[in-house]
Amino acid sequence: MQPLTGFRDFLPDACAERNYIFAKWREVAGHYGFVEFDGPVLEELDLYKKKSGEEIVRQLYEFVDKGERAVALRPEMTPTLARIVAEQHRQFRKPLKWFSIPQVFRYERPQRGRLREHFQLNCDIIGEEVPESDAELIALVIDVVRAFGFTSQDFVVRISDREFWTELLKLEKVPPDRWEEMLQAIDKSEREPREKTEERLGKLAKPVFEILEKGGESVKLNEIMGNLRMRGLADFAKIDVRIVRGLAYYTGIVFEVFDRAGKFRAIAGGGRYDQLVAQLSDNAVSLPALGFAIGDVVLGEMIRGNATARAQMEKTITSERDVEIYVVVAKEEQRGNAMAAIQQLRDSGYRVDYSLASAKIARQFRLAEQTGARFAIVFGDEWPQVGVKDLTSGKQESVPHDKVPSHLESLREP
Amino acid sequence: MQPLTGFRDFLPDACAERNYIFAKWREVAGHYGFVEFDGPVLEELDLYKKKSGEEIVRQLYEFVDKGERAVALRPEMTPTLARIVAEQHRQFRKPLKWFSIPQVFRYERPQRGRLREHFQLNCDIIGEEVPESDAELIALVIDVVRAFGFTSQDFVVRISDREFWTELLKLEKVPPDRWEEMLQAIDKSEREPREKTEERLGKLAKPVFEILEKGGESVKLNEIMGNLRMRGLADFAKIDVRIVRGLAYYTGIVFEVFDRAGKFRAIAGGGRYDQLVAQLSDNAVSLPALGFAIGDVVLGEMIRGNATARAQMEKTITSERDVEIYVVVAKEEQRGNAMAAIQQLRDSGYRVDYSLASAKIARQFRLAEQTGARFAIVFGDEWPQVGVKDLTSGKQESVPHDKVPSHLESLREP
Repeated sequence: MQPLTGFRDFLPDACAERNYIFAKWREVAGHYGFVEFDGPVLEELDLYKKKSGEEIVRQLYEFVDKGERAVALRPEMTPTLARIVAEQHRQFRKPLKWFSIPQVFRYERPQRGRLREHFQLNCDIIGEEVPESDAELIALVIDVVRAFGFTSQDFVVRISDREFWTELLKLEKVPPDRWEEMLQAIDKSEREPREKTEERLGKLAKPVFEILEKGGESVKLNEIMGNLRMRGLADFAKIDVRIVRGLAYYTGIVFEVFDRAGKFRAIAGGGRYDQLVAQLSDNAVSLPALGFAIGDVVLGEMIRGNATARAQMEKTITSERDVEIYVVVAKEEQRGNAMAAIQQLRDSGYRVDYSLASAKIARQFRLAEQTGARFAIVFGDEWPQVGVKDLTSGKQESVPHDKVPSHLESLREP
Repeated sequence: MQPLTGFRDFLPDACAERNYIFAKWREVAGHYGFVEFDGPVLEELDLYKKKSGEEIVRQLYEFVDKGERAVALRPEMTPTLARIVAEQHRQFRKPLKWFSIPQVFRYERPQRGRLREHFQLNCDIIGEEVPESDAELIALVIDVVRAFGFTSQDFVVRISDREFWTELLKLEKVPPDRWEEMLQAIDKSEREPREKTEERLGKLAKPVFEILEKGGESVKLNEIMGNLRMRGLADFAKIDVRIVRGLAYYTGIVFEVFDRAGKFRAIAGGGRYDQLVAQLSDNAVSLPALGFAIGDVVLGEMIRGNATARAQMEKTITSERDVEIYVVVAKEEQRGNAMAAIQQLRDSGYRVDYSLASAKIARQFRLAEQTGARFAIVFGDEWPQVGVKDLTSGKQESVPHDKVPSHLESLREP
């Protein structure tokens, strides 16, 4: 009895780590004025076949449903966003700043450790074409990674511009229907032997490799770097035209986030896709747009592999999840009073646990310690006094039962 | 370009309502010492075919994947939980108190307004058989509904015991392979004409209707009510043996939550399923268990239909989502200082927005008001002073730029 290949069970510790990541994502997106949306986990197959690009389409988790519809588990969120925006944008002030945390799926031959699902933060700005919006989005992805405790020593955003390359393709008179193929060859050049890329590029190989070797820049790229500098974020970013991105719908600025140590492939990536809303709406609506996605898997590995980031995560999880108070019923006749107190403490917002089955006092204290509770409250002979024991220091005080909440508040404060 | 029939898009307001519901669910489950887990959205079909009962199996969202596996989008969470627990329980102290917030799916003929997906809170206690654990779980479902602002005037938990009925079936010598059929007939008796139920029950009709008319109780049911009374929750619950529940795997105490006004079917339901872990593990592991589920759809309708609950929701959403500070760039030369301040304020935890494109001052103030921001900070001629304008009162003060954070803190406090 196992989960399907490529799907994860999230036991409580793994689920807490996932929720920690989600909470930080939500928090930072909120700081930038982004609001959350969501869409269906299942969409019509056509939504992806049209525009997502070859790699996504080849790995679609598609099937035919009981109603004979061709559908797919979403491989990415951007087509859903473009669909919703094309239909609903009139009710919103532009630019839209929207984020979502979808689970996305792919179906490929199972390989060791390769998942068929993961979660992503997607952040998109719709309806704004100025380069300031590209800078805002890149600042956001930087702050999303920083929020986990990483510094400019740990990661960098490499920023590029597809127009930089399409200008060259125009100049070299490459017909537009071969542009995507050329762009993908440049995209793969870092990860493939030079000969392979030269073969793909043909007569374009020479000018492309000249640029790749000496680097490239543009007015727009410099403007974006200038904006990041004003924010104090220049150390987290650099211009690097080797970045092109694999998705077919990008039209302008593109970027990817990498760990400086080079242990992982891209942690996050995104860019401008000014034509997608128009393409998906048959030109009924045209809106410039840009966005990025960051996944939970590589980010989780990075956090667990970095002492600072890991300590921050563990501290947050413990403080938000552990039981705070364990109630010990030392005399069975006190059960009624104990239950009333448990209810009152939970109503006041404390995380409270107790032994559902009757148990010896020593066992109840052992359970209290195992839950990680800070305090045990003991209902026994002293009633109407109860014992409040600090399980860290071992110190126990006798407190009138109706003074327990204010007593706990006073202990909590420092 | 629409979502698939029965699937929802969550535009920002709908997503905020959903997240509000999820956050309250998490909060209350935490007060009871429950920890979150999750499992795959897709499972092997067999996991459900075995034990979920006829109604679930008929409506399974099943399909064959590209690898020829028979799979289904999860229709409920309990089989996944039982699968995980059967495999992993040794690493956890019993009882487990676990919750999850899965999206679940069904495929039935589309009807007006019927969804093919919804979200649920599932709370389960595994490894404890004392009736105190049934009471703890029922107290939790009561507090989950109370958390949204509902009172004992608004809802009630009807508590029953399948063993109450199986005792009768034994007494009347009904063969065990017909028990499930008899239980389902009793379950449906409230919603079907009496003649139909009589026909289903055959010779059992007379004793069953005698009980349904005069009511029934048992030692265990009275014990649970007694425990809820100790907690001060007796007004939220009553014994009602008409409740049987539709799922096949229940073995003991069962309960459903209803709105007092009778506008909806059950808001939540659950019960004890002491055999399921053993059945799904071919008797490798045997653990008593109990749980409940509450969905997002009916609960959302109830909240929107109740003035108090709705006001509480809207207040929470606004205070957690609206932009707090809008930065106005009154002089283009001040953009650098404005960007630095925006970065600093976001780093300090404020939700900050500004106009990405250059815009006239009046337009920037209009945008500030539209975002719902409490403060506008104006970067203009006064530098190194900036203007801090309270957009509620209209009052504007001139503040040294490096004193803005402490100034905002002082305004925030009351």
